[in-house]
This record gives sequence, C-alpha cells and structure tokens, in this order.
Amino acid sequence: MKAPARLGDGVDAIDTPALVIDLDAMDRNLATMAAFARAHGMRLRPHAKMHKCAAIAKLQIAAGAVGVCVQKVSEAEALADAGIDDIYISNEVIAEAKLARVAALAGRVKLAIAVDSAPGVQGLADAVKAAGTTLDVFVEIDVGQGRCGVAPAAAGALAHQVVSHGQVDRGMRFAGLQAYHGRAQHLRGAAEREAAVRHAVALVRAAQASITSAGIACPLVTGAGTGSFVFEAASAVYDELQAGSYLFMDADYAANQPAPHAPRFEHALFVKSQVMSRGASHAVVDAGHKSHAIDSGLPCVWSPAGGPVPAFSNGGDEHGILLAPDGAALPELGGTVWLVPGHCDPTVNLHGHFVGVRGGLTVGTVDCIWTIDARGCVF
Amino acid sequence: MKAPARLGDGVDAIDTPALVIDLDAMDRNLATMAAFARAHGMRLRPHAKMHKCAAIAKLQIAAGAVGVCVQKVSEAEALADAGIDDIYISNEVIAEAKLARVAALAGRVKLAIAVDSAPGVQGLADAVKAAGTTLDVFVEIDVGQGRCGVAPAAAGALAHQVVSHGQVDRGMRFAGLQAYHGRAQHLRGAAEREAAVRHAVALVRAAQASITSAGIACPLVTGAGTGSFVFEAASAVYDELQAGSYLFMDADYAANQPAPHAPRFEHALFVKSQVMSRGASHAVVDAGHKSHAIDSGLPCVWSPAGGPVPAFSNGGDEHGILLAPDGAALPELGGTVWLVPGHCDPTVNLHGHFVGVRGGLTVGTVDCIWTIDARGCVF
Repeated sequence: MKAPARLGDGVDAIDTPALVIDLDAMDRNLATMAAFARAHGMRLRPHAKMHKCAAIAKLQIAAGAVGVCVQKVSEAEALADAGIDDIYISNEVIAEAKLARVAALAGRVKLAIAVDSAPGVQGLADAVKAAGTTLDVFVEIDVGQGRCGVAPAAAGALAHQVVSHGQVDRGMRFAGLQAYHGRAQHLRGAAEREAAVRHAVALVRAAQASITSAGIACPLVTGAGTGSFVFEAASAVYDELQAGSYLFMDADYAANQPAPHAPRFEHALFVKSQVMSRGASHAVVDAGHKSHAIDSGLPCVWSPAGGPVPAFSNGGDEHGILLAPDGAALPELGGTVWLVPGHCDPTVNLHGHFVGVRGGLTVGTVDCIWTIDARGCVF
Repeated sequence: MKAPARLGDGVDAIDTPALVIDLDAMDRNLATMAAFARAHGMRLRPHAKMHKCAAIAKLQIAAGAVGVCVQKVSEAEALADAGIDDIYISNEVIAEAKLARVAALAGRVKLAIAVDSAPGVQGLADAVKAAGTTLDVFVEIDVGQGRCGVAPAAAGALAHQVVSHGQVDRGMRFAGLQAYHGRAQHLRGAAEREAAVRHAVALVRAAQASITSAGIACPLVTGAGTGSFVFEAASAVYDELQAGSYLFMDADYAANQPAPHAPRFEHALFVKSQVMSRGASHAVVDAGHKSHAIDSGLPCVWSPAGGPVPAFSNGGDEHGILLAPDGAALPELGGTVWLVPGHCDPTVNLHGHFVGVRGGLTVGTVDCIWTIDARGCVF
C-alpha cells in the first residue's frame, strides 16, 4: 500500500485523506506520561492496540515503558516481527490454533497473556507444554466493565491452576491481576471516574485476598487508561498503567472533565482532508467513515491557527459535510480541513501509514512515515 | 497480511474473527441482479466500493456488468492493477496530484469520472491534456442527498464546459449524468423510497432539459442503489444501475421494507467469531468495532440452522457481548458465533481477505480466499 506523502514534503503536499501526527505535540504527550509514571513509581506499559506501530512502541520504551500491551495474537506477532520484544496480550485466547501461535511467540519475545477461565488456562498449559516455551499469565477480574474477567472471589482458584501448571511444566508463571475498567475511561465527570476506580480498587483487593488465601503471592496489578490513570496511580494497589490514547488524544477523551492535578495531553493525531465539493451552504470533504471511526462520535474540525471552525456532519463512508456556524466562512473548494478523530484506536486501524509532521500543521514538513504494522490484525 | 484460513479447510478451522462469504448465497444474489438488469434493459455497473475485490468484480462482469464504479482514485488504481479494465470513479477529484493520477490511469483502462464544479472540469482538462489521455466525464447533480452535485439547472453549463474541452483537446467526452440518491437507500418504507426516487427523476429530467438547452446530447443517466434500484429501473430515465450491496446484503438493507415485486437477496457476508469468555448471563465474542463497522448499527447474530439467537451488544473495539433472549441458551466458551454486519462496505474495508465457503456455514469448506485489493484505499 502506498503512503500518502514523501519525506521532506510540505504539509500541503500530503495527499488526502491521510492520518497525520503532529510529532511535536506527540513528543510532549510522550514525555508528560513518562514523567508522571516515574514520579508515581508506576510501571508504564502503554496499550499498542491504539497505535499498532512498532516505531511508536520503540519511542515509548525508550522513554521508560517496560513494553506494550496488545489485544490480539496477530497484533503481538506483527509487533514482534517489527522488533518489539516485551508484549502483553491483555485479553483471553481460547482457540487451540491461536494458543499454539501464542506458545510459539513466547519462544521469540518476553510474552504475557490474560486468562479468565479454567479451560483457558488448560488450553494455554497444553500449548506451552507442546511448544516448550514459557510465558507470564495474568488472571483477569471484572472490575466493572461487565465483559471479560472472573469475579474477585474466583481469582484465587484460577491463580492456583496457573501456579500448579507452572510447577509441573515450567511453561507458565503467575504474573498477577489484569484489572482494566474500560467503561470508566469515558465517564465524563472526573468524580464519576474516580468513583468507578474506587470500586475497581475494592474488587482488586478482594481478588488479592482470594489469591493470598490460596497461598499465592500476587506480583503485579495492571490496568488503567487515559481517562482514569491518575486514580489508579493514587490507589496504592495498581502497579502498572496501560494507558494508550494519551499519546494522540482523541475528541472523546478531550470531552472528559479533567481530573484535578491530572497531566494534560494535546491533540496529536489528525485526519487531513480536502474540500472536494462546495454547495451554497455546505462544503464536502473527502473523508468519511472509511477514514475515521465514528463509534465514539464524529470527528471535530480543527483549526491549527485557532478561531471558529465549521461543524462536521455525517456524509457517509467517503465524505464529510461541513456546515458553517453563524457568520463563519466555509472553506473553499480545494481547501485543507483538519479533523480530530472521535476515537483514535479504530481510526488508526483504517490507515496504512502515519505521516509524521514537524513544525506544525500549517507550515510543517513530513519528518517520518511510519507503517501501521498491526493494522487490521484482528485475529 | 496473513489470511485467516487455508483452501480446503472446514468451516470450523477458519480463524476468528474472519470475513466469510457464503458463496452459494452470493452466486444466487449475483444471478438475481444480473437477470433483473437484463430483463429491464438496464446496464449494470455495480459499486466496487462495497467489495473492493477484483475477483468479485470479474464475476460481476462475467455475469453481464459493463464494469464497476469506485469512489476513490486509489481504489481505481488497485482494481486496475488487479485486472479490471472498465472503471468509473463516481466521485469528484480536485487535488492536482490526484488528477494527474486519474489522467495516467486513463491511459491504462477505460476510465470515467464525475465532476460538479468548473474548477474541477478545468483541473481534469489540464491533467488529461498533460497526460495525452482520454476519459468519460459525468456531471453529478444533487438528487436529494445534499452532498455533492450541482443543481439541475447548472448541469447544462457544466456539460458545455466538458464538451468544449473535449472539442479542443479530445481528452474528455461528456458521458451523461451521475444521479445517485444515497439517502433514499435507507428509508425504511418502500413508498418513501419510491417517493424519493420520483423526486430524483424529476431533477434528472430538469438536468436533461438544461443540457439539451445547451445543445448537447445526454448519453446516459447512472445511479441507483440496492434500496431503490427497482424504482430507477421503472423510471424510463435511468440507464445504468450502480447497486453494490445486493451481492452481500447487510443487516441495514435487510431492515428495509421490500418494494413490491423487487427481487430478494440473501445474507451472504458474515463475520465468524468465537466465544472467548463466558459470564453467568453473558458471553463475549472476539469481534468488535475493528471487525465490523457500526455506522449503520451493530451486527445481528445469525443462526445457520435457524432458531433463536442471542442479542449482540456493544463490547468495544475487540469484543462483542451476547445476551440471551428469554429462555434461550448462550453459546459456550469456544463456540462459533456468526454475525451479519450492519453495513457491508466499511466492514469489508476492515479485513485483508474474504474467506469463501461452499456448502453452507455449518459443514462447508473453504473454496477460495480472495484478497480485498482496494482495502484501505482512501485517497
């Protein structure tokens, strides 16, 4: 797949629609989160399901991250192929063929995975035994998402199953608790998010008690996202932060009420689009659902210079419709329109490349073109 | 990118999530639409923005289609590279660099494109003159979508501009009117869709009058989609049908009230998923927004054997949550769950391959694996 720009191009020459990173803003976000984790004595393992890009994972690791998380086996394989050597699949795998791939990958990189069922542990044990490899296993508990994860009281039995297999086969090491509260990330009020994490912390403590009762030590608790990490960091229970979106900051996270004293992140990910048609009272840009995901709402129009922007309205898969606010002008035919995606993760997944710009979106130049290595890696 | 299956595999061996075509159902849909077009004396130029796949385009052309439509220049390039030689970009292009690619492509395949502005025609004229190539040009009119296209009364002037350039440079041939009503496709009531097309037909007639007044003949009117094509076919104004989704039939189109005497199409596109986690009252499958688009609603669970199915609830980017209807059982851990996407076009765009199955979804085998050639071709 061709890239929409060449190194050294001016911003104007980037083809549209294209996924553009403001590298200066991204660098500041990267440093801010790294400094936060260091200051709070937390491990940082950013979620690479967001960027799916080994070049970015390497920057995060160079800034102090211990490795990355992913959600899918094929994501882990793609990032391993591109040189990332410490990967946590923070999700369950059940299919035998996929478990064989997990076990094989554990022979190439430092690998961890989550489990939430006895058959899942057994399947994993069989796979690593057959492959002769070793990996870390986190027991996932449901801390309020209502999706994967066992109840806290069941954590001890599952940890015991992992430890028992580990003693026999040496293929699995019990690594701790996966305790991510996805739903908490997008609660708009800071107090609501704090309350959700307080509830999660209580469930983590209950799971730790269940594990202790089974005579097992719980080495690590991992979780947290961009909407809530300040609360997990303050909890004295979580050890590792999995936040990912902080690096790019999408429109949905920007709509959250900031938590007091929380570090601020800037928009660093944009879709560059072009006006391809003009009506008397609307403009049409060449970016639609195939250029930006809309599961968390439509993108927002962004003015690099500040000032009023048109409203973005749904134009379908390949178009966006811009309507002018009162008195504001609409961009002319051929004009550039910058969009901030509603949700960065699935937006990134729609593109083959990031175009990295230095010097701002108005007069900057293309400094890097990064392949989105794990794009489309759903299985 | 790896494919999620191998030729000859049983359905059970297809990795998840995967995009699976029931080839027997697709063949019936293909034949039904081809027969309809023949019986009504209509040209069929299916929209390949839906399947993005040269192998499928070739089947459509073998069944009588005159060629395909696409929405993006990079889609046209990808399909041309894969052997499709009659392509209509049913959309406007404004950027100079992209127009140069259009003009170059016109030297490789029979190419057509839409215009809706004087600068658009001028840019295209400059590009084909520089390249020394020739292409067909359709003037797009807005027939109710409120997106691209000029008002009918402006069609004559634009057609005149195209014809004038054509006489001077021989690079452009005025081919007729692009008159697609996207919004009409998804109006639920058949009478509503019929009324919308009746309005579109009146606007087409007005545009034809404007073109005739300019002393120009209008060779062809092209438009229509899966929700409305029976009405365009009955109009005596449209010559060419662009419907695409009929081949796969998504959940959104299936929710339309069928028009009287309209041919029926079967669901032929599915996402195969697997239960990866079970709670007491819910199951979690490994397919979320990164496996199926949700712009037209969540997918529906499909039972190949018939019978009650669980309700699909939003589980985020990588998960789907199944809730049991009253009294019905939830699938067990490891069980296969078939999903019918809400909207086929952007769902296809998320995957690297189609896995084609013959013999049904229960006991069938993998008969073909087709690359989604123009996947992610947004620019």
